[in-house]
Amino acid sequence: MNPETIERIRRFTEDRNWDQFHSPANLAKSISIEANELLECFQWDEENYDLKHVKEELADVLVYCRNMLDKLGLDEDEIVNSKMEQNEKKYPIEKSKGKADKYDQL
Amino acid sequence: MNPETIERIRRFTEDRNWDQFHSPANLAKSISIEANELLECFQWDEENYDLKHVKEELADVLVYCRNMLDKLGLDEDEIVNSKMEQNEKKYPIEKSKGKADKYDQL
Amino acid sequence: MNPETIERIRRFTEDRNWDQFHSPANLAKSISIEANELLECFQWDEENYDLKHVKEELADVLVYCRNMLDKLGLDEDEIVNSKMEQNEKKYPIEKSKGKADKYDQL
Amino acid sequence: MNPETIERIRRFTEDRNWDQFHSPANLAKSISIEANELLECFQWDEENYDLKHVKEELADVLVYCRNMLDKLGLDEDEIVNSKMEQNEKKYPIEKSKGKADKYDQL
Repeated sequence: MNPETIERIRRFTEDRNWDQFHSPANLAKSISIEANELLECFQWDEENYDLKHVKEELADVLVYCRNMLDKLGLDEDEIVNSKMEQNEKKYPIEKSKGKADKYDQL
Repeated sequence: MNPETIERIRRFTEDRNWDQFHSPANLAKSISIEANELLECFQWDEENYDLKHVKEELADVLVYCRNMLDKLGLDEDEIVNSKMEQNEKKYPIEKSKGKADKYDQL
Repeated sequence: MNPETIERIRRFTEDRNWDQFHSPANLAKSISIEANELLECFQWDEENYDLKHVKEELADVLVYCRNMLDKLGLDEDEIVNSKMEQNEKKYPIEKSKGKADKYDQL
Repeated sequence: MNPETIERIRRFTEDRNWDQFHSPANLAKSISIEANELLECFQWDEENYDLKHVKEELADVLVYCRNMLDKLGLDEDEIVNSKMEQNEKKYPIEKSKGKADKYDQL
């Protein structure tokens, strides 16, 4: 996300004095709620989805994730790289190539 | 997210030939599943959470969101700014300041 | 659910003194968390699921729903019949037959 | 659930010819989606919830659970009792009394 976009999200919260509602737990609920509005785009038909709607719901998930990063003072690249390092170890290429199995069943 | 981090996520998928599993619907399910692993960190106690675990689960949500952006060829800043524009209109500062009400109840 | 099964669920909570954790909000989180463990059974492959696992996760959802009914003093048949009445009106047979559209798009 | 309520749910699906949409995977998505509409009742304020709304969303979760039981030919009491047996073993009273810890941390 560009610094301008991040700043826009922060200002939106600040201008409305909404930081008081943004406990980590409330943000976790919100990410799940928006993730399920995204999932609803694919509820009965997984092929013919409304792309405009998908974009809006995915954006909502991303905004609440940004709120949580801000709230907890986290760096997105740091936590993602740290997790990718774990994933790369849990799913060695030779064992997991072309297979959707969970790491404990490889 | 830095270009290097984005590239690392893409390479992870490519190296394992996992793009075949990444239908938009499967990714939507995955975002919800990871969002709920994040929510689980706050299931019974919203104050004393395990920050290390929170970081890992939030990273998982972000990685699947990135996978979906890639799959659908979307630009993160574009969809987020477009949604923020809607949010700014739906929640005028004077009406929503300090209130957690939904826009249709303002 | 048989009265014996309901009683078993209640005793399980009582014996562990877990009612203190069962706020309606915590139970709502728990229902969502278990619903997503159920969803995980269908994450990458919707046809070849592990039925034993599906049964366990569906049971977890049902147990937390029962906890919530108990916590709020609700009668399952009453709330379900009341909602079915709404559904029957929102989805008239002639309009919705064979279509998965949402009621506001019929 | 009373046999009459179960029958009403079945008839609702049959009358609309909706069984075709009720794959186990679609029902799992639906349970998660409705669970999150329930969770939304507690998104920003966990104490002052709209009980009428809570009842409706909990009913929706229960209806989709019933659809899944029917679809897979499962007996609710059987799967719940089988899971309760596991839970009783995983959470021995003396170890888990008054504690919300997960079984693997007891």
